[in-house]
Amino acid sequence: MDPRGLTPGEARGLFRGGVVAPTAGWAAGWAQANLLVLPEERAYEFLLFAQRNPRACPVLDVTEAGEVSASIFEGDLRTDLPAYRVYRDGEQVAEVGDVREYWRDDLVCFLIGCSFTFEAALLEAGVPVRHIEAGTNVPMYRTARECRPAGRLSGPLVVSMRPVPAELVAEAVRVTARYPAVHGAPVHVGDPAALGITDLDRPDFGEPVEIRAGETPVFWACGVTPQAAVMRSRPPFAIGHAPGHMAVTDARDSAYLVP
Amino acid sequence: MDPRGLTPGEARGLFRGGVVAPTAGWAAGWAQANLLVLPEERAYEFLLFAQRNPRACPVLDVTEAGEVSASIFEGDLRTDLPAYRVYRDGEQVAEVGDVREYWRDDLVCFLIGCSFTFEAALLEAGVPVRHIEAGTNVPMYRTARECRPAGRLSGPLVVSMRPVPAELVAEAVRVTARYPAVHGAPVHVGDPAALGITDLDRPDFGEPVEIRAGETPVFWACGVTPQAAVMRSRPPFAIGHAPGHMAVTDARDSAYLVP
Repeated sequence: MDPRGLTPGEARGLFRGGVVAPTAGWAAGWAQANLLVLPEERAYEFLLFAQRNPRACPVLDVTEAGEVSASIFEGDLRTDLPAYRVYRDGEQVAEVGDVREYWRDDLVCFLIGCSFTFEAALLEAGVPVRHIEAGTNVPMYRTARECRPAGRLSGPLVVSMRPVPAELVAEAVRVTARYPAVHGAPVHVGDPAALGITDLDRPDFGEPVEIRAGETPVFWACGVTPQAAVMRSRPPFAIGHAPGHMAVTDARDSAYLVP
Repeated sequence: MDPRGLTPGEARGLFRGGVVAPTAGWAAGWAQANLLVLPEERAYEFLLFAQRNPRACPVLDVTEAGEVSASIFEGDLRTDLPAYRVYRDGEQVAEVGDVREYWRDDLVCFLIGCSFTFEAALLEAGVPVRHIEAGTNVPMYRTARECRPAGRLSGPLVVSMRPVPAELVAEAVRVTARYPAVHGAPVHVGDPAALGITDLDRPDFGEPVEIRAGETPVFWACGVTPQAAVMRSRPPFAIGHAPGHMAVTDARDSAYLVP
C-alpha cells in the first residue's frame, strides 16, 4: 500500500481500524489538520487565542458541541485519527487510538491547519522534505517565543523544522507563503538558538532528522502550539491529536492556496 | 482640512469632538475597521460566525470584556467613531456619536476588516472610486446569499458596491485580492440580480452612486454583515458602527497586504 495514493476516507478507515503512523505524505493532495478538543465552556477562550495567534493556530473548522464530524471531515473525529493525547489539568493521561470512552456531549472540536498540507507543493517545486524521505515524524520544538495570551490560555510558539538546501530556501518561502491557512511562510530561517532551541537533535515532539552540509534549518509555526498552551495553562480537560498524527480531511490542499 | 492627510489620532479626535462623516478617504494609508460590540455571553457565537464567514467578517482585533481600547485602536471605542448604532433585541434604538451611556463592563468589541482599507491601493492603481469622488457614503446591499450560521446567529451576506470601468475590473480584482484581511477580492462582478439585489439606486445602507456607461458593478463582502445578523437574530443587546462611519485604526493599510 502506498499511503500517498489513499483517499481521505481510505486513510481514515485504516486509522479507525488500528493503524498508527505519522501522516506526513499520506493521501497526497488532501489537507491535513491538527485537532484540539475542549469543553464548550473553554471554546471562546481558545478561539480568541487562535485569532490572536493566526500563524500558529489557523482555524479551518469548528464543530458544534457534541458533534463528531466537521464540514471538512466526514469521518468520526473520535476514532479516525491515528493517535490522540488526552489531558487532564494539563497533564497527558493517555495516548490512544480511539477517544470514545472520554467523549462528552459538551466537547467542541477545532481543526487547525497543518504544514503537511504544503509538503506536496514543496516536493513539486523540487524542495526535498527530509522526514518524508526518512519515513519518520517531523521534528517539532517549543520555542522561547510566547504566544499572545487569551484569558487563561497562554503558551509558547511551537515550530516544525525542515532542513532545506541553502539555494532552495527562497523557493521554500515562496511556495509555503501561498498557503497562509496552513501556517504559511516560515517564522524563522537559520539559527535555532535565536528561537531558544538548544539542540535540534532533541525535538520536543516527533523525531529528529539529519541536517546535511549546505542545508539551513527552516522553521514553520506548528499546530501543536494549542497543545503546548493546554500543558501550560491546565484546563480541566482537553484532547489533541498525537503530534504528527493528523486528521486527514476532505478538503483539497488547493483549497488553502492563495493566488 | 483635507481628511486624507489626518493621522488616525487626529481623525479620532475630530469624531470624539462631534464630527459626523463617512470615513472613506480619511487618514489615507491607515486601516479602517467595522465595529461590533456584544455582551461576553454572546462573544463565542459571534467569533464562530466570523470564522465561518471570513470573507465578510475578517476579525482584526478583539478586546477583553470591558476594555475600550484595542491593540490596533489606541483611542476610546465608545467615543472615537463618527457614529454608532445601538440595538436591543435586533431593533435599532439609537444612532449616536457616543455610546458611553450604553456601556457595560461585560461588553466585548470586535474590530472587523473594512474595504475602505484597500481603496488607496485602488486609486494608486488607477481604479476610480466613485463614492470618494462624490464625497458620499459607499452603497451597501443585503444579498440573497446566506452566511453560514453559528448557534443562534444567522443572516444575509452584505456587500459594498463600486462601479469599475470594464477594462479595469481585472486590475480591481488583482489589487484587492492582495488584502484578504479587509474583504479581499470581490465576491461578485456584474449582474446585481444574481445576488438578489433588485435596485442599485436603493442601497440598504449608505448612498447610491452613479454607474456610467462602460462600467460594471463590482461587489465586495462588507463588514456590515455582522449587523445584518444582529437585526435578523435579535440578541438582547449590541452596538455597531453606523455603516460607512468606521473605526480609524493605528494599523497601516500595508499590514494587511499579502505579498
